[in-house]
Parts: sequence; C-alpha cells; structure tokens
Amino acid sequence: VPVRDIHHLGVAVDDLDEAVETYRRLFGAELEHRESVADQGVEAASMRVGGGRVELLAALGPDTPVGRFLAKRGPGMHHVAFEVADVGAELELLAASGAELIDERPRRGLFGLQVAFLHPDATGGVLAELVSRG
Amino acid sequence: VPVRDIHHLGVAVDDLDEAVETYRRLFGAELEHRESVADQGVEAASMRVGGGRVELLAALGPDTPVGRFLAKRGPGMHHVAFEVADVGAELELLAASGAELIDERPRRGLFGLQVAFLHPDATGGVLAELVSRG
Repeated sequence: VPVRDIHHLGVAVDDLDEAVETYRRLFGAELEHRESVADQGVEAASMRVGGGRVELLAALGPDTPVGRFLAKRGPGMHHVAFEVADVGAELELLAASGAELIDERPRRGLFGLQVAFLHPDATGGVLAELVSRG
Repeated sequence: VPVRDIHHLGVAVDDLDEAVETYRRLFGAELEHRESVADQGVEAASMRVGGGRVELLAALGPDTPVGRFLAKRGPGMHHVAFEVADVGAELELLAASGAELIDERPRRGLFGLQVAFLHPDATGGVLAELVSRG
C-alpha cells in the first residue's frame, strides 16, 4: 500500500478540554476541528501540531470503543492513521495479501473522512487506520 | 513550544527484520537508517512511510527500556517524536512552565539526533520526545 503520509496520531484522553489546552500549551498545537459522534461513542478534537496532526479522543461513555480502551490501558496513544489515495482500493490489496482487517469496506469516519481499520495483529500490535478524503 | 511536525512514531517490536518487512509490504515503507546502540539497549530501524516516518525499536535484552516496555505492554506504539528547531531552548521553556521532564538537557539520540523525552504525566499518558537535527 503506497501510504502518502501519517495523517494523524489518535490519542485517547480522559478530559477533552484539558487535553486540547495541554497540546496548545506544550506544543503550540491549534484546534482544527472538533465533533461529537454519538453512534461511535466519541468526542474528538483534531489538533494541528506544526505540519502534523493529533486526534484527541474522549469517550462518551464507558461502553464505547474509546471507553473500553481507557478502562483497560488508561489514556495514551490509541491508533496511527496513514493517508492513502483510496481506502477502498487499498483494502482490496490488503485483503488479497492476507492482512487481518477490522473493516472490510471503507466507512465514514470522523471529520468526513473515509476510513478503515486494520487489526493490530496485521502490524505487530499497532492499531492502524487508513484514511482518505471523503 | 512551536512544534514543526511529527518527526516519527516510535513502535516497539519483537522482531526487527519481520517488522521492517511488514511495514514495507503493508504500507510501501522504505528503510531510511538502521542502527544498534548498545548503551541504549536498542536496535532501531527508521522507516519512511510516504512523507511520514516510523521508528521501529527492538530490545537488545530484557533489562533495557524497550525490553521492559515489551514485557509490560507487549509490542505496539511506544512514543511520538515532535520536531522542534532547538531541543535545548524548548526544554527551558517547558521546565519554566512546570512540565514534567525525563531529560533535563538534550542528549544524543538515535541516528545522530538531539533528543529529550517528556514524562507521560506531562501529556496525559503519551511518551513524547522532542527532536532536532544534531
């Protein structure tokens, strides 16, 4: 898969307002987007950190993907997103190569992006997301 | 701290050769540098993933920082490195603001970079590294 760039680093946080302020203060980060997605159980803030991007993720409740992650591992790095030209085309190549996928088809992710997650077993323990512009 | 970019994502791995091959196959990554640093107990491979960079880290033994991380958490994301113009100057600003630091002064990191680590308590559970060119 020809990845174009690291699109963002996803970070699970306990308190979104506090995390936004911490990244602003420590690293000069700027808020790019912020949205709450009830059916994914998450409130997210996309922060530009220079030319890079960190996506801060807070759980809307304990029985959500980010809520379960926080209960098990505590706050910290959650996933890395790689930008590709076409998530659907890359998924077909990955499936054909036998890579373990969480999402067999692209779905609508945060901030209008097309996304799909690979299983951490595919990458040696890293939850990786493919992202393309929606 | 005005961060210029995400310099790399550091990933702890069990087998460096296998991880290099996995990132090449799945993401089209290319090996940039590889080196073994005995006094840090690590063998590292810097991989370009499009415009981004992933640093794969294998332990030279169990009683090393990466070895202890692998024993406790298993393979996966270890740290994120932010590129700044001058690690020393940024450390002074961070110390003055009360941020918890692991390294009070820049030190020589992998691949000839000047580096310093912040304590994960400073960032809500993320081990963050500041990097500037050596």
